[in-house]
Amino acid sequence: MSELFAVIMAGGSGTRFWPVSRRRRPKQLLPIGGDLPLVQRTSERLRPLIPPERQLIVTSERYADAVRDMLPDVPPEQVLGEPVGRDTAPCIGLASRVVAQLDPEATVVAMPSDHIIRPEDTFRERLRTAGHALAARPEALLVFGIQPDRPATGYGYLRQGAALDAYDGHTVFALDGFVEKPDAERAAAMLAEGGYLWNAGLFAFRPPALDAAFRRHLPALVEPLGRMARAFGREEFDRVLSREFTNLSAISIDYGVMEKVDGALLLPLPLHWDDVGAWESLRALHDADAAGNVAVGDTLLDGASECVVMARDGVVAVRGVSGLIVVHTPDATLVCRRDDEQGVKAIVEALTERGLEKYL
Amino acid sequence: MSELFAVIMAGGSGTRFWPVSRRRRPKQLLPIGGDLPLVQRTSERLRPLIPPERQLIVTSERYADAVRDMLPDVPPEQVLGEPVGRDTAPCIGLASRVVAQLDPEATVVAMPSDHIIRPEDTFRERLRTAGHALAARPEALLVFGIQPDRPATGYGYLRQGAALDAYDGHTVFALDGFVEKPDAERAAAMLAEGGYLWNAGLFAFRPPALDAAFRRHLPALVEPLGRMARAFGREEFDRVLSREFTNLSAISIDYGVMEKVDGALLLPLPLHWDDVGAWESLRALHDADAAGNVAVGDTLLDGASECVVMARDGVVAVRGVSGLIVVHTPDATLVCRRDDEQGVKAIVEALTERGLEKYL
Repeated sequence: MSELFAVIMAGGSGTRFWPVSRRRRPKQLLPIGGDLPLVQRTSERLRPLIPPERQLIVTSERYADAVRDMLPDVPPEQVLGEPVGRDTAPCIGLASRVVAQLDPEATVVAMPSDHIIRPEDTFRERLRTAGHALAARPEALLVFGIQPDRPATGYGYLRQGAALDAYDGHTVFALDGFVEKPDAERAAAMLAEGGYLWNAGLFAFRPPALDAAFRRHLPALVEPLGRMARAFGREEFDRVLSREFTNLSAISIDYGVMEKVDGALLLPLPLHWDDVGAWESLRALHDADAAGNVAVGDTLLDGASECVVMARDGVVAVRGVSGLIVVHTPDATLVCRRDDEQGVKAIVEALTERGLEKYL
Repeated sequence: MSELFAVIMAGGSGTRFWPVSRRRRPKQLLPIGGDLPLVQRTSERLRPLIPPERQLIVTSERYADAVRDMLPDVPPEQVLGEPVGRDTAPCIGLASRVVAQLDPEATVVAMPSDHIIRPEDTFRERLRTAGHALAARPEALLVFGIQPDRPATGYGYLRQGAALDAYDGHTVFALDGFVEKPDAERAAAMLAEGGYLWNAGLFAFRPPALDAAFRRHLPALVEPLGRMARAFGREEFDRVLSREFTNLSAISIDYGVMEKVDGALLLPLPLHWDDVGAWESLRALHDADAAGNVAVGDTLLDGASECVVMARDGVVAVRGVSGLIVVHTPDATLVCRRDDEQGVKAIVEALTERGLEKYL
C-alpha cells in the first residue's frame, strides 16, 4: 500500500503583501487570512491525512530555520532550503527524489504553501482520491483543477478531457491541455462552456513516474537532482545544494513537464480556493462590516466604506474614505486604491528606485 | 531700565496632532513644522532679545522634566510644572508673581509655546516696542494682535481703538474690545472693514499692573498665587503648587482679566503667524510638490495629489489618492480627508470609546 507524502513549496519571496510581507518575512510565513502563518496552515490542513513526518517543505535557505521553528514536528532535515530560487521544476524534482529515498512506494502530493482552501475535509478527501487514481495508474502524473466560480483572468486553466475512472464517486478525467491566462471574454466563454478548471499548482504523482518524465522532458536536471538527493540527510547536503542549485536553469513544472507529458490525469476540486495573491484577497477571507469594510487588527473605521484595513502591531484609524487599502506596520504604512491592481508592485519598485529598500 | 522677561505657556495636552502628538508627548514637545520641538523653537525665537535666564516656561508637571531637557540653559527652577491645568489666568498670574520676585522692575511678555511666527526679527522688534509702550504706561496691560490675511473663523478678534503712541514708527492703539470667533460672513466683513486683529494669546505687562487687575477682577486668585510665588526657589515649591493649584478654578486670562480691564493697549503684529492647530497647518509650514502634496519624513507619493503625508520613524507609501491626510507612527496610523475638520478629534474620541486609549 502506497503512503501519501506531501511536498509543500514555500520558496516565494513576494512583496505583494508589502508592508506586511518583506524580503525577510514573505507571505507564506505570515498569518494572512487567519491566525496561523500560511505555511503552518497548509501543513495543519494535511495532518489528518498526511502526518508531519511524511511532509517535506521546500523553501529558500533564508527561511528554512523560520519554517523549522513554525513546524517543530516536521523532521528538520525535511525542510529543504534552496540556495537560490529556480522555479518549481527543480523544487518538485528534488523533493520527489528525496521522498523516493524515504519510501520507494510513496505517492506525492505537491502544493504551494500559501493558498487557502475550504472546506479542508473535502480537500483531504480528494487527495485520497488522487492516491487511488495513481494506485490504478502509477505511471501517470495528476493535476488538480479548481472548479471556477467566476470568469477569473488571473489564473491559467486546465481543459478537462474524457472521464476515466471514479473513486468514492469522484471522477478522474484525462487532462486535455493547459490554457494560458485568458482575457475577460475568453474567461467568460470557458465558464459558460464548462470543463475548464483553474490551475492552482497542485499535483500528485509517484516519484518513479515524475522521474521518467524528467528523463524525457528535462534530462539536464536528472544528474544534478540525483547528486542532491543522494546527499539528503548527510552533513554535506547544504553544500551540495549550494553547488548544484546555482547551475540549474529556472523552469516551472507546468512548462517543463506537465504540459508535455501524455496521459496526465485531471482531478477537479469542488471547493473554495484562494491564492491570496493581493491585499484585495482579504475580502474573501474575512467578513466585511455593514459598510463593506474588511478590517484586521486594531482598527478604527469611522465613516469609511469598501476599504481593506489592516494593522499589524499598532492601530489604524481611517475616517471618511472609500475604496482604499490601508495597511499599517511599525515601520511602514501603505495607502492605495483597492482597484489599483498594480499599486503594491509599483510602490515596491518605486521604493527601490528611491533608495528606500531598507523598508522592503 | 526695565528688562524684558518671557513667560512661555506650554501646558497644553492636545491630541489634534494624533498620532504624532500623544498624551505623554503633546504638540509643544514635538518638532512640528520644523526641526526643533515647538517649545524650544519658541524659546530660541526670543533669545536675541530675551536670554534664557530671563525666560520662564509654565507647563504640566508631567512635561516639566522633558522641557528642562530641551532647554538646558533655562534655569531649571524657571520651568514651572502645574499639577493640574487651570487655563491661562492662574498660569500667567503665577509666572508674573515669580518674575516680580526675580526682578521687581521687569516687563513680561507672555505667549503660547506652540505657535509659529515669521519673520522672527519683526516679532522681536515688536516685543521691544511693547516694552517701550509699557515704560510709558506702566499701569496698562497690552495685547498683541495679528494682522489677518484671510477671513478666519477659527480665532477670536481684537477691535482696534484710537492710535495712542508710536515707537520706532510702530503705532500702539487702544484696545476697543474682544470679538468672539465669528461666522464666515462676519469674518469677511471685519477683514473688509479693517481694524480687527486676531487674538493669538500674546500679552505684555508689568507684574504690578497685572497684580492690580487680578485684585480687582480675580480677587480669589490673589492669595493662592501669593503663597505659591513665595515658595518659588524653595524645596517646598512643588508641594505648595500641588496643594494650591488643585483648589483654583480654571479661567482664561482673556475672560478673567483682559476683557474687563480699562485702558488696555493693542499692538498689531504684521507678520505670519500660525497656531499650528491641525495637520492641515503643515501646508503653510512646508513646501508642496507640483501635485500639491506636502510630505514630511520618509514618504513615497505616486500619483497622489493635494495630500498631507507624514512619516515618523518609518515610511509611508501613498498611491493614487487625493486630498488625504496620512500620518504614520510606529504604533498608529491616521488616514482621513483634508477637508474633514473634525477628523482627528472624532478619531481620538472613538479610540477612547472603543477601549483603544493605549494609543492616545
